[in-house]
Amino acid sequence: MANISKKVTWSGRDDEEEQQKRLQEPGEGTPLLNGSTSGPESRHGRQFPHANFFRIGQLSTVNLDDDIQELEAEKSPPSPKEIPHNEKLLSLKYESLDYDNSENLLFLEEERRINRTGFRTVEVSRWIICGLIGILTGLVACFIDIVVENLAGLKYHIVKENIDKFTENGGLSFSLLLWASWNSAFVMVGSLLVAFGEPIAAGSGIPQIKCFLNGVKIPHVVRLKTLVVKVCGVILSVAGGLAVGKEGPMIHSGSVIAAGISQGRSTSLKKDFKIFEYFRRDTEKRDFVSAGAAAGVSAAFGAPVGGVLFSLEEGASFWNQLLTWRIFFASMISTFTLNFVLSFYKNKPGDLSNPGLINFGRFDTKENGYNIYEIFIFICMGAIGGILGAVFNAANYWLTIFRIRYIHRRYLQVIEAMLVAAVTATIAFIMIYYSNDCQPLQENSIEYPLQLFCADGQYNSMASTFFTTPERSVRSLFHDPAGSFDPQTLGLFTLVYFILACWTYGLTVSAGVFIPSLLIGAAWGRLFGILLQLASNGANWADPGKYALLGAAAQLGGIVRMTLSLTVIIVEATGNVTYGFPVMLVLMTAKIVGDCFIEGLYDIHIKLQSVPFLHWEAPVTSHSLISREVMSAPVTCIKRREKVGVIVDFLSDTSSNHNGFPVVENNSDTTQPPRLCGLILRSQLIVLLKHKVFVERENMSLTQRRLKLKDFRDAYPRFPPIQSIHVSQDERECLMDMTEFMNPTPYTVPQDASLPRLFKLFRALGLRHLVVVDGHNRVVGLVTRKDLARYRIGREGLEELYLAQT
Amino acid sequence: MANISKKVTWSGRDDEEEQQKRLQEPGEGTPLLNGSTSGPESRHGRQFPHANFFRIGQLSTVNLDDDIQELEAEKSPPSPKEIPHNEKLLSLKYESLDYDNSENLLFLEEERRINRTGFRTVEVSRWIICGLIGILTGLVACFIDIVVENLAGLKYHIVKENIDKFTENGGLSFSLLLWASWNSAFVMVGSLLVAFGEPIAAGSGIPQIKCFLNGVKIPHVVRLKTLVVKVCGVILSVAGGLAVGKEGPMIHSGSVIAAGISQGRSTSLKKDFKIFEYFRRDTEKRDFVSAGAAAGVSAAFGAPVGGVLFSLEEGASFWNQLLTWRIFFASMISTFTLNFVLSFYKNKPGDLSNPGLINFGRFDTKENGYNIYEIFIFICMGAIGGILGAVFNAANYWLTIFRIRYIHRRYLQVIEAMLVAAVTATIAFIMIYYSNDCQPLQENSIEYPLQLFCADGQYNSMASTFFTTPERSVRSLFHDPAGSFDPQTLGLFTLVYFILACWTYGLTVSAGVFIPSLLIGAAWGRLFGILLQLASNGANWADPGKYALLGAAAQLGGIVRMTLSLTVIIVEATGNVTYGFPVMLVLMTAKIVGDCFIEGLYDIHIKLQSVPFLHWEAPVTSHSLISREVMSAPVTCIKRREKVGVIVDFLSDTSSNHNGFPVVENNSDTTQPPRLCGLILRSQLIVLLKHKVFVERENMSLTQRRLKLKDFRDAYPRFPPIQSIHVSQDERECLMDMTEFMNPTPYTVPQDASLPRLFKLFRALGLRHLVVVDGHNRVVGLVTRKDLARYRIGREGLEELYLAQT
Repeated sequence: MANISKKVTWSGRDDEEEQQKRLQEPGEGTPLLNGSTSGPESRHGRQFPHANFFRIGQLSTVNLDDDIQELEAEKSPPSPKEIPHNEKLLSLKYESLDYDNSENLLFLEEERRINRTGFRTVEVSRWIICGLIGILTGLVACFIDIVVENLAGLKYHIVKENIDKFTENGGLSFSLLLWASWNSAFVMVGSLLVAFGEPIAAGSGIPQIKCFLNGVKIPHVVRLKTLVVKVCGVILSVAGGLAVGKEGPMIHSGSVIAAGISQGRSTSLKKDFKIFEYFRRDTEKRDFVSAGAAAGVSAAFGAPVGGVLFSLEEGASFWNQLLTWRIFFASMISTFTLNFVLSFYKNKPGDLSNPGLINFGRFDTKENGYNIYEIFIFICMGAIGGILGAVFNAANYWLTIFRIRYIHRRYLQVIEAMLVAAVTATIAFIMIYYSNDCQPLQENSIEYPLQLFCADGQYNSMASTFFTTPERSVRSLFHDPAGSFDPQTLGLFTLVYFILACWTYGLTVSAGVFIPSLLIGAAWGRLFGILLQLASNGANWADPGKYALLGAAAQLGGIVRMTLSLTVIIVEATGNVTYGFPVMLVLMTAKIVGDCFIEGLYDIHIKLQSVPFLHWEAPVTSHSLISREVMSAPVTCIKRREKVGVIVDFLSDTSSNHNGFPVVENNSDTTQPPRLCGLILRSQLIVLLKHKVFVERENMSLTQRRLKLKDFRDAYPRFPPIQSIHVSQDERECLMDMTEFMNPTPYTVPQDASLPRLFKLFRALGLRHLVVVDGHNRVVGLVTRKDLARYRIGREGLEELYLAQT
Repeated sequence: MANISKKVTWSGRDDEEEQQKRLQEPGEGTPLLNGSTSGPESRHGRQFPHANFFRIGQLSTVNLDDDIQELEAEKSPPSPKEIPHNEKLLSLKYESLDYDNSENLLFLEEERRINRTGFRTVEVSRWIICGLIGILTGLVACFIDIVVENLAGLKYHIVKENIDKFTENGGLSFSLLLWASWNSAFVMVGSLLVAFGEPIAAGSGIPQIKCFLNGVKIPHVVRLKTLVVKVCGVILSVAGGLAVGKEGPMIHSGSVIAAGISQGRSTSLKKDFKIFEYFRRDTEKRDFVSAGAAAGVSAAFGAPVGGVLFSLEEGASFWNQLLTWRIFFASMISTFTLNFVLSFYKNKPGDLSNPGLINFGRFDTKENGYNIYEIFIFICMGAIGGILGAVFNAANYWLTIFRIRYIHRRYLQVIEAMLVAAVTATIAFIMIYYSNDCQPLQENSIEYPLQLFCADGQYNSMASTFFTTPERSVRSLFHDPAGSFDPQTLGLFTLVYFILACWTYGLTVSAGVFIPSLLIGAAWGRLFGILLQLASNGANWADPGKYALLGAAAQLGGIVRMTLSLTVIIVEATGNVTYGFPVMLVLMTAKIVGDCFIEGLYDIHIKLQSVPFLHWEAPVTSHSLISREVMSAPVTCIKRREKVGVIVDFLSDTSSNHNGFPVVENNSDTTQPPRLCGLILRSQLIVLLKHKVFVERENMSLTQRRLKLKDFRDAYPRFPPIQSIHVSQDERECLMDMTEFMNPTPYTVPQDASLPRLFKLFRALGLRHLVVVDGHNRVVGLVTRKDLARYRIGREGLEELYLAQT
């Protein structure tokens, strides 16, 4: 069952011998015949054969039928059990986005026809779309906020009454049962929606959006259905009391909204508004999705600048001033919309004090400055955050591996989610029950104060962290006056919530990890502050609220490993810049310390999904590789005028899984490889075949209907598979002329360019295919995203990932 | 004297006929023989001949001798009279930076030799350098701040005593004389330093740094001498009471510091520390200069995030996460250093409340929120700012043209600067003298309260804006309680200061335009607020301080036309994010309105200096141009093994002014253009010639000393001119082998790629040369920065600039 191509690892030092060795080794991959793929002959006719499909020994427990079904069922939503279980894999199922325009004759003709006024209209439409993205993202955020508040309010109200009733009479186990059932019921509905509706909507969606902005086409990720499932899912999981936040999913929601609006139609609803047709291509869509992601962050945290930076830090490679301004505009509109609508909902119309879903509350700067000697304390906190973050990530990594192996059936996933919900309620209940930390009740500070066994006029302090939404807990940890929390309560809470949050992330529910991370950090940060205060005999500077904020930053930084954008997000969410420097220090330290142990949480999940993710730079020691070694070869080339039959045949051949084909001159001398004259995409060929743009004889020009760019745009983005196109035997003998449709000026590299050089070109321009040519401009190979993403720095130096069809 | 190549203009619509016409028109340029250039035959063997040297009719008044001297005196500092006086020019004297590494064999060998630990050391050095940049930039800012404060304090103290003395006795004209002389004396020294020391240090330096980050090598811009002159100059011009700020120049200072530290040596001081040798190339230097610019902004405004965004918005094209983090680190360190040192200077060690040179003071958010209906008022303010900014820019544009024509001698420039200083003092004095606006004296609000003819216990309100440093005036306009200023005072002040600031910008002194712009805006903004308060019968929301802030933003935005980074800078400088949305609205509106009339101030000055500046995108209607039309051809190619004599000859030939040469295969068939095999730079050839890396016969290998990368790095960045290298007659017959030194994998484009496609590649990778090849990989032309920068959108559509040697 198992078949793995040989893993080749070498370090910078002895690369020459290694390379020699590699050249001598014959390919070891013996491909496996599989139900749906016809003879997956290795497409790499060189020293590294990549098996098209394989399975690792460990996983032989997985049912084979299941896997074949998955490979066949392209239209059904991908189920999360597809995630491979080995991080040394790169999946071949992900395609790239075409960030580089195919500048064929049709495109150039259109561009030349548009005059300056036309371009101005296009530019204005871009701004309008960004405005709409902002407004809709803000509205979706409002909707989530209001529904969550009401649902959770209802739940806490009922449970509180019940608890109050049974506290005196005894029989609190009924209350626990009630609470746990409420939670499980909410979570069950949410989990069912996700598992059976749209599995891609699970989790926070940030890894998926990161991949999309990186240029990877993740199936279903920006569909309307995903948005609906995501929004309902996140409401239900937050209302269900899980240790999750509603902020992360906003980023995904914003992205879907952006992708939808910018296209001026919905493929799912089969509704075409006939507007924004100019933007129906990957380049424009990806730009708008960056704006959507930024608008999402902005609505979630009230952080428009943070949103822009998030989009840039996580996604963009090419910085464009105009695009950035548009992104900024979308972000601003989004937080403004949220603020405006919530001001009406809260009966204070015009009062713009709710810029985001989470509000950290104002930190009063006059009291809470910081001193120079506190900087060392901050660095320590950063280090603690980094270590705790690494522990969190490692635990979640092993948990995810476990889930992939054993919990890959949908009903199991739903059951696990319900279990977590019930356990969360139970643990919370037990902790509240056995807690002796009673605090005097102050006005308005606690929304659902549980008296339990406390004296009258007092409330249970543990309940103020557990018996409310996580957002409120964060705020009370930041702002409640010194002495509101007992150190023991905080310590216990940190431990328990850490375990719960770690267990929860990766469940089949829509939920984010930002708020739980902040909450864990705020709890131990406050504890740290209290201890400092004790150690320094109640010094003035050791304000627990400040340390709670920095602890929250440290923990979040240790888990997600963002720096610049996270600094700005936290600064914007706190509403003042005094703590900018400490927050930055803490985040930097957390990142540096955390990176010594394990990667960031999102990167772990991206890796576990085997996404061909391109990092910012090529691995440092990869100068020893040249394009000839990296590229895929031999590559299927098409002649400028090719027989329809030939094209249909190789498009149907699943072993040639590229999506772009170099077009070459019709060559009389067959001993030499043919000369490059263009590049055509699989999708373009399919549209050509569908519209039957054929000529009958060699020297006949096109007489049938002339294709326009519109035909390509109408087919975008869901091009039909080749199997759905029927070509008669007569038509197979016709010719197809690519001249008008191919990109006549594809980017090329010489065959001895180094990998970092290729990488830079590929990354900076967001390419999908890069043709490798020899000194005579003859095609010798093709470099795609997978060929570059395959190399990375491992423990023993540069290592190469396996490619797999999984 | 004049000789101009024909200007060809066409719009998107009728481009095809136009192109036809252009193809038929013969070149009209009849080049002019000039003292130093030998036969400037047009290097463009195509339809647009570019005269290598020409002069426009209008300027025939300029002394010819002067111009020849300039062309010859390459080593003497460029004098500002060189600025061409026509914005439809592109100067050929500016070279590009090599942001793309020349990946020759030496480089690859070195990279392959370095192992992971080595790369880690390099990465750590980068962080150390960024830290040092931050520290030194912060210290320089401290130095400027402290010296200015003391010098200006001394001056105001003496003048105030004098005025107080003469107010009662009469004879205030003596006081005026004293004040004016102080100012003129300071400014004279500053201006002399700049005019005769280092003319590039004039102005704020932001346009120059913008160009540098864009990839243009501006001579002398990052030299130590420039830094010294800049720092002294800015101290003297601020102390001299000019309408200038010390913030803009910090950006230039930070950049010089960055360029200096990162190289580990000073060419001026002839001191090589033998460290950081790896960074001695344009790629690394440019990255560090971005960090330096950010650190400068950060120190100036206490805005670390704003600094990063400034660097990115104005400079970067390729966004790299790691680089951005380093830039952020440098910024943070810079503002921290400033804050830390100033806390000691102000005898409050550890009190970190002075993050920047200018401090807008805290805006208390609880009182000064804003209401939804104020948003329309903000948009109006933005529009006013845009219009006033456009007026400012237009006036300064004409003034600059006037200066280029008539005030190009250095002593005239010094005299003008002194005149402005004296006039500024006089006007201020007159305005204070005739002002009747007396206000009751409050504690600590005014540092040098002038009583003049006010009653005891009162001070002259006009003096509180004029008789202090502009930074203090801005702060008092923002924060002084309502009623501190009379509307008439503010109106008059706005008008006068507007004129003064406009006259001052462009003088031969080191000075920034940020603070004067903020001051003008704050004045009319406050006036606007007062009028609103009157109109609304003293409504609570119409706080003059808030409107002063937004007016300041509008005015600054209208002049410099930055949005994202400026929003963040202002938000960080005010210390809270409440006004983020209004500031952003105001800046956006100001930009949109201003752009209808005229460009931003920095862009105007860049254009007037004829710098080949590449914007973010190619002109929208330029899809009609293809590389064949854009490129320079024929291009000088070098054979892989070429005779030394041939190389020396064409390097000495000033008509071939390219700095990179395609290397081609030794071709037996001379009827065909030769095939490309690499690219070599002029500087590399010069190093090769200097070290005499020759072989004597065709099939002899290199026996003499083997060159290392170190030899190239040691020569960087001031490569000797070809004239300084002596080659004997015997040596002329030897051969030079490029194989090891050329870049074997230069980026190429096909000859029918569209201009936007070329542009994108060029801009995204920061290229210096892009080889245009035909279908057989044979060199047909070369595209450089000037070939791309030449095209821009004018009033009548796409237009082409002239190239000139000026």
